[in-house]
Amino acid sequence: MEKRDLERLFKPRSIAVIGASRKKGKVGHDVLKNLLSSGFKGKIYPINPAVHKIFDLPVYKSVEDIKGKVDLAIFAIPSRAVPAALESCGRKGINSAIVISAGFKESGPEGAKLELELAEIIKKYKMNVLGPNCLGLINTFHSMNASFAVEIPRPGNIAFFSQSGALGTAILDWAVKESIGFSKFVSFGNKVDINEVDLLEALEDDPDTKVILGYIEDVKNGVKFLETAKRIALKKPIIITKSGGTKSGARAASSHTGSLAGSDKSFDACFKQSGVIRAKSIEDLFDFARAFSYQPLPAGNNIVVLTNAGGPGIMAADAVDNSKALTLSSVSKEAAENLRKCLPPGASVYNPVDILGDAGEERYEDAINILLKEKNVDGIITILTPQAMSEIKETAKVLGKAKKYKKPIFSCFMGGKVIEHGIKVLREERIPNYSFPERAVAAFSAMINYKNRLSMPEEKPVSYKVDKEKVKKIFQEAKDKKYNTLPEYLARDVLSVYGFKLPKSYLAATAEEAMAKAKELGFPVVMKIASPDVIHKSDVGGVKVGLKDETAVEQAFYEMTQKTKTIMPKAHILGVMVQEMIMQGKEVILGMAKDMQFGPLIMFGLGGVYVEVLKDVSFRIAPLNPTDASSMIKEINSYSLLIGVRGEDPVDIEAVKDGLLRLSQLVTDFPEIIELDINPMKVMPISKGGSFAVDVRITLEA
Amino acid sequence: MEKRDLERLFKPRSIAVIGASRKKGKVGHDVLKNLLSSGFKGKIYPINPAVHKIFDLPVYKSVEDIKGKVDLAIFAIPSRAVPAALESCGRKGINSAIVISAGFKESGPEGAKLELELAEIIKKYKMNVLGPNCLGLINTFHSMNASFAVEIPRPGNIAFFSQSGALGTAILDWAVKESIGFSKFVSFGNKVDINEVDLLEALEDDPDTKVILGYIEDVKNGVKFLETAKRIALKKPIIITKSGGTKSGARAASSHTGSLAGSDKSFDACFKQSGVIRAKSIEDLFDFARAFSYQPLPAGNNIVVLTNAGGPGIMAADAVDNSKALTLSSVSKEAAENLRKCLPPGASVYNPVDILGDAGEERYEDAINILLKEKNVDGIITILTPQAMSEIKETAKVLGKAKKYKKPIFSCFMGGKVIEHGIKVLREERIPNYSFPERAVAAFSAMINYKNRLSMPEEKPVSYKVDKEKVKKIFQEAKDKKYNTLPEYLARDVLSVYGFKLPKSYLAATAEEAMAKAKELGFPVVMKIASPDVIHKSDVGGVKVGLKDETAVEQAFYEMTQKTKTIMPKAHILGVMVQEMIMQGKEVILGMAKDMQFGPLIMFGLGGVYVEVLKDVSFRIAPLNPTDASSMIKEINSYSLLIGVRGEDPVDIEAVKDGLLRLSQLVTDFPEIIELDINPMKVMPISKGGSFAVDVRITLEA
Repeated sequence: MEKRDLERLFKPRSIAVIGASRKKGKVGHDVLKNLLSSGFKGKIYPINPAVHKIFDLPVYKSVEDIKGKVDLAIFAIPSRAVPAALESCGRKGINSAIVISAGFKESGPEGAKLELELAEIIKKYKMNVLGPNCLGLINTFHSMNASFAVEIPRPGNIAFFSQSGALGTAILDWAVKESIGFSKFVSFGNKVDINEVDLLEALEDDPDTKVILGYIEDVKNGVKFLETAKRIALKKPIIITKSGGTKSGARAASSHTGSLAGSDKSFDACFKQSGVIRAKSIEDLFDFARAFSYQPLPAGNNIVVLTNAGGPGIMAADAVDNSKALTLSSVSKEAAENLRKCLPPGASVYNPVDILGDAGEERYEDAINILLKEKNVDGIITILTPQAMSEIKETAKVLGKAKKYKKPIFSCFMGGKVIEHGIKVLREERIPNYSFPERAVAAFSAMINYKNRLSMPEEKPVSYKVDKEKVKKIFQEAKDKKYNTLPEYLARDVLSVYGFKLPKSYLAATAEEAMAKAKELGFPVVMKIASPDVIHKSDVGGVKVGLKDETAVEQAFYEMTQKTKTIMPKAHILGVMVQEMIMQGKEVILGMAKDMQFGPLIMFGLGGVYVEVLKDVSFRIAPLNPTDASSMIKEINSYSLLIGVRGEDPVDIEAVKDGLLRLSQLVTDFPEIIELDINPMKVMPISKGGSFAVDVRITLEA
Repeated sequence: MEKRDLERLFKPRSIAVIGASRKKGKVGHDVLKNLLSSGFKGKIYPINPAVHKIFDLPVYKSVEDIKGKVDLAIFAIPSRAVPAALESCGRKGINSAIVISAGFKESGPEGAKLELELAEIIKKYKMNVLGPNCLGLINTFHSMNASFAVEIPRPGNIAFFSQSGALGTAILDWAVKESIGFSKFVSFGNKVDINEVDLLEALEDDPDTKVILGYIEDVKNGVKFLETAKRIALKKPIIITKSGGTKSGARAASSHTGSLAGSDKSFDACFKQSGVIRAKSIEDLFDFARAFSYQPLPAGNNIVVLTNAGGPGIMAADAVDNSKALTLSSVSKEAAENLRKCLPPGASVYNPVDILGDAGEERYEDAINILLKEKNVDGIITILTPQAMSEIKETAKVLGKAKKYKKPIFSCFMGGKVIEHGIKVLREERIPNYSFPERAVAAFSAMINYKNRLSMPEEKPVSYKVDKEKVKKIFQEAKDKKYNTLPEYLARDVLSVYGFKLPKSYLAATAEEAMAKAKELGFPVVMKIASPDVIHKSDVGGVKVGLKDETAVEQAFYEMTQKTKTIMPKAHILGVMVQEMIMQGKEVILGMAKDMQFGPLIMFGLGGVYVEVLKDVSFRIAPLNPTDASSMIKEINSYSLLIGVRGEDPVDIEAVKDGLLRLSQLVTDFPEIIELDINPMKVMPISKGGSFAVDVRITLEA
């Protein structure tokens, strides 16, 4: 699909304000006023059938009365009047619109109906429409405040889009106070048309935007979002806060994977796979935004902490230790010596470098110059607590000068009133300041993680050669027989086609047959009831393992079939599966549950209690590439149990990875699979290699 | 021990400033100036042999030249001159001193020597001395700024003590900016004399102090600290930030418990056991301080979120969901109806209650009045994002009025410049405001946790009747034989005396004896090499389990003794222990490692990989009370494995608790035990009950 052209939305040459009003406090008044006061250089046409002049501008009854071309229409009229007015825009050939008006989907069924009408009109005239129920749009580099927000941030390299208009105003207010510069601010409300994906694409090659920030509550199309974000995150950092992670969205599902998945898990997977930096709170969003906006990316993860106070230095070191991303650089002998020369005897020249409470600007400057020249220092966090001898403003300027080293510099000026002037200087110098060392470390870590992501080689999903037609036939058979959950022998066939190794298994219709097959397989064996009607085999005593001889097999056959008949008299029993028992290896679980927004969500975990009780599992959205597969294996807490502890042989991790990739291909090829569990898959020790899909359950769409 | 009387330190009637100076920027100048400008009402005696008058005050050459009585001396002279001057104070009968001067322990060996001299003098004259290397002391209710901090906070109900002086200045600066009131501010530096315990005790019954805040890096006496904090935390909240949690302090130790413990683990245990609220960062410290200082404790954990913006409302709900402490109260039918009456149709009357972007003060007021009257609402978080129709200051006042409900009220006014005036009103109204919903929820949670702690019944360590003398003799025997690590038969005896159940076990000197004993015990059996020289039995192949018959026992005997002789030719082999093999039950580990600061630190975890690989363990400081024991069992992630999963029988948790309490008593009775591991202890299913200490290792002080 081609990218949408939103040029006229972001940079209109002429704007009609539908519902322009003379009354202060009315949205139609504020929008018009904002357009004028922001210095918009194009033509402005107020529309209002009842008025002749507003702010000395001639007013039109309808857009269709305007002679010239109009690029953008802004709606500030009651919702029920919007469809007709939008239709009128369509006729006039106005291609772009911002519907600020509320009273649509968010207000109930009637509003939802109105919103559907809008969608129809948009489709009919091929329009680009932002909103409804939004704050509007600000393009600082186009001198355009097309919103009803009073405040407009200074121009800068951050673009921000928000699904919540109210949060948008809070963020604008913050930006003004902190002198943060924005390139664009977009409130996209109910997204009847333009959504997060369109906005990402619009910002992708926007030369004014270095960092993309977003606040979202959901996405319109998960797959498209993942794909788009992944591409763009390689060009510029995307930092997103997504709310609504708990409870909501967790779906009731019968499989392990289904019950452990949930909407937040899929978003988390999506962010990991796409390289989007997830800000867990608006506080993080602010913190990260300043880091990425102001500073170059670090070349490596070695940072040094410089401080005039021991305590906060320790806190910074603790935070570095706790972050998995950063390490405290060691200070070279030479640097230590140089530091010693310009610092008083009590100072500590090792990281954290403590230049003592009476440090003035000079001591900061000397230390910074020595440290940032060091090869194995990739960045610095400079802590200042206000002491009698502190030269706060001057120290802030010193940090500004140090930008010449092209290494990221973070400051942590701690306090309140006294440090205010210093913080002002830091803002001007574009040094991100954090009130607490932990926050500086968190922002630094976000940068390093992004940097590492950029340096990862590009990968494509692996493609295995498989006989898709065969699986298609199996699914057809299942559909014909109205099996939602496939009988095990069919599910096994599907896995087999996709290259999974399975324990040898035979269907035995009689006890004699079972005994003969068991003998052939070699003892011990596993037996399972074979019936398309029995989904939870263990509920009917339909699974027995470790059967040691023919007598045991015979007995198991009768018991199993008898019990099933008793409990489920209507079940059609095909017989019993006699299976090779895989004695070696570690149990893992590979699963998939269909997510509403992202499609197949793949799960991995160690078998048994690790999955069921400790919920120690990881998720990724299919299709997986090899790195996705590796990282989801490494992500679980019990990973170390796979690579061998207490002198145990490590398991064949490559076989697990291979299994995940094959599973990914299977569920991508067949979207009708809504749930799939390979539980357990037995992974062999590396010395032997390989894996066996011991038990599998596949559920198709009804 | 009796409490120290620090009355004269905190409320002196006369003060000598030793090193008073006319030179601006000198500490001796600033301290004197601060004393004067803070309005100190007592007598002030500047001491300086070279000057006659400072600030119009007559100057003395030495404290001994002063005629009248002096309560407190403040030192602002170079460190090497301090001992003589302190001695002079002693002679003069000055009982209290603040040594601001640096250049002691923190500066190297010479300074450390000077500090020892101070300690001698303090002891000799029974003085109360704060410092050295500190910022000083502020008592706002005594109009006394006896520090060299420029800024002095307004009087208020928070007391703050800090081990870091530099951090202290940052905190004072913050307090001034945020208009936070302090009762006392104490920087205690190197704590040559007065330490955190003395300060806690001084604040215990201080009527001016409602909340105690502290920043510490270590404690002088862990046991005393725990005991004191535990007592005082029942009277007023103690909130502490402790830094230096990572790496540092982790001690090399041979036992499981030792290697998993570490200084931060013991502090964490200490805070949990004492009821101290741990603030993980200074940011948390600030956040919690305002909550406790301004608001009443909530009666329960049901909170309601009121918002004019959907997004932040969702974020608050997410945070409540994630906090284990709080729940979103359900809104009663009646309240919902009342809300509907005064809110516009689009509003949401369910929690979070969304009163929409155009809400003015009235809508806030109506909603608050309805909600806080509700029985099952214990507190409220009120979110405001600045919208065109927002009445920010007025809404802040509405919150102030709502204090009449005597339920905690938190605000979250989000933004920057526009909301500043509102925040000022909130400060005046003593409503704690948080920039982000998550922080409000965290502060609320801290309050609820504290409240729950207060309502817990008081408990004493359980005391079991045991024959201590017998253990004394065993340890004597071990000492006589120079065994640091007890041979297993002795370690077993110790546990046995303390009421642990052990698998039956016999020492067999010959293979024949072993075979006979095994027969007597019943197969299978366990065999272990018996030698006081072999500590790691498995290293010499000295443990065999599941021996099924006499032949296996005979073979094991020869193999085991032979291998031990080969690997450790000098080991004195007593024979082999033949042990009953406990087949049932779940493995847990109970351990103890001596902590430098807190004494015996008890560890609990599930056996096997849970301890070794997943490090899923919990710690408490001995002696334990039953609640400590219960909570440390419940704290591990794998707790659910103990109470039965997949239809398994739960294990006898009471037996584990009993084991922990017995272990606690043992290590408290015998401080010479430096490490102890019961690994594994096998806990029986509840149907059978009880536990067995299968393997035990006890190490005594060398």
